[in-house]
Amino acid sequence: MPSLWQQFKIRVRYQETDQMGVVYHTNYLNWFEWGRTEWIRTFGLSYKQFEEAGLLLPVIEASIKYHAAAAYDQELIIRTRVESVQPMTIKFNSEIVDAMNLDQKIASGWTEHVWMNTSKKVLRLDRNSPDWYELLKSTIVNANE
Amino acid sequence: MPSLWQQFKIRVRYQETDQMGVVYHTNYLNWFEWGRTEWIRTFGLSYKQFEEAGLLLPVIEASIKYHAAAAYDQELIIRTRVESVQPMTIKFNSEIVDAMNLDQKIASGWTEHVWMNTSKKVLRLDRNSPDWYELLKSTIVNANE
Amino acid sequence: MPSLWQQFKIRVRYQETDQMGVVYHTNYLNWFEWGRTEWIRTFGLSYKQFEEAGLLLPVIEASIKYHAAAAYDQELIIRTRVESVQPMTIKFNSEIVDAMNLDQKIASGWTEHVWMNTSKKVLRLDRNSPDWYELLKSTIVNANE
Amino acid sequence: MPSLWQQFKIRVRYQETDQMGVVYHTNYLNWFEWGRTEWIRTFGLSYKQFEEAGLLLPVIEASIKYHAAAAYDQELIIRTRVESVQPMTIKFNSEIVDAMNLDQKIASGWTEHVWMNTSKKVLRLDRNSPDWYELLKSTIVNANE
Repeated sequence: MPSLWQQFKIRVRYQETDQMGVVYHTNYLNWFEWGRTEWIRTFGLSYKQFEEAGLLLPVIEASIKYHAAAAYDQELIIRTRVESVQPMTIKFNSEIVDAMNLDQKIASGWTEHVWMNTSKKVLRLDRNSPDWYELLKSTIVNANE
Repeated sequence: MPSLWQQFKIRVRYQETDQMGVVYHTNYLNWFEWGRTEWIRTFGLSYKQFEEAGLLLPVIEASIKYHAAAAYDQELIIRTRVESVQPMTIKFNSEIVDAMNLDQKIASGWTEHVWMNTSKKVLRLDRNSPDWYELLKSTIVNANE
Repeated sequence: MPSLWQQFKIRVRYQETDQMGVVYHTNYLNWFEWGRTEWIRTFGLSYKQFEEAGLLLPVIEASIKYHAAAAYDQELIIRTRVESVQPMTIKFNSEIVDAMNLDQKIASGWTEHVWMNTSKKVLRLDRNSPDWYELLKSTIVNANE
Repeated sequence: MPSLWQQFKIRVRYQETDQMGVVYHTNYLNWFEWGRTEWIRTFGLSYKQFEEAGLLLPVIEASIKYHAAAAYDQELIIRTRVESVQPMTIKFNSEIVDAMNLDQKIASGWTEHVWMNTSKKVLRLDRNSPDWYELLKSTIVNANE
């Protein structure tokens, strides 16, 4: 069972458009990351803390579908949840929807990540930082109830 | 049968790194697009020509795997080929490898695109621009022989 | 006399860092633009409206000083005001300060812009859109009183 | 006396355009940096080497004028030279011109940089790395002769 969705509103910036007159397609992946950052913050943590503790969480795979174009100055909702927490990996789901019409999906996808130390070696979070592992794991348990 | 691979060399720019000390993950999708642009140029066309003729080719789906990190100033090869050409869609494969060690894959993935007119309506390329459709189609036939 | 400062808070995203471990220097110019957009919105207008009315406002000159580095996840204040409104040009001042210590300046600078039509010809805003010209002009008069 | 100009050709990428149909203005600063990197390489050094030796060279001030818009797929020349080399600072000049019409200036400007160690403390390059200081200095002397 995935965690609950965390969501917040953004507004498309000029810089994020291209000459097709809509948002350039790689910006959605940037927003997915922004969403993951805010998802983590919801649980009283921050990705910055992970790095300060010597933990990195690089993306190892990403997948994204583009359902509709977003325009300059449009307000969007970034929705993020965790699909699964494993000792070495974590998988997030992301959705971007129109803030004025929540049924209008703009983009959706997922990213998978692996825990590494600062030497870029894969590690097991349950051994390295059991408290954080349990906290992340609990976001799924809680959603489940 | 996919087309032959088109390839060219790039060098990682400072701007493309992040504080993990490696390339930020969304840049690879930018490079995939750069690769598609150069693939098209190989056949005597340019994506610019498509737009000048009122044809857009937005991404509708993208998938990417990250095999290894790339570093600032590293030379990389962008490899691009077409996997399939359909009347309304085209699918590209992309690979990024280390220019000094071609067996070292950095990232790989694919993008799927749909032909649209400037009103963002889907169109059939084989009817709208049969010559270009045949030319794109032939890149696959040629690779096949 | 310049207009009053408009200000809002942002948070540095991972994507905006580079391998020096701080914000990559061109992001500040992106933030200056974000600030101008929000300054305009303060007066009941939007840059989007300008473009819908066939008015473009490209940058013709920019200048920026970097006083201190900003870090990932840091909260910053973007401060924006108009320094001068002329028939053909408008000049903005921008400042980025640490949200936790407003005396800590991070970056400061200005941008100058020229009004153009969609054919990229310079125009006089006071003739083309006298209401908007007066409104922009009044932001300075008001601050003056 | 400044050094000789170092120059190389680039091509505008789709990602670098915005919905005004031209290059988004902050990309020119990115290109200025790319130019500085290639200028350094001309002298048998690389900016990467500086960082590996514990030397950082952040921007402390930048100034840019926009003379004409650049378009998607356009070929441009990035021209870079050093205006002055001081013990603690270095100042670069940059120009972007149309590769098909070298008299058509697109953007021009300069950036000033300060040498720092990895603790972000300013240092004197002539004391820290006298060989590199002399080499950089000589690029100006040589141009002078």
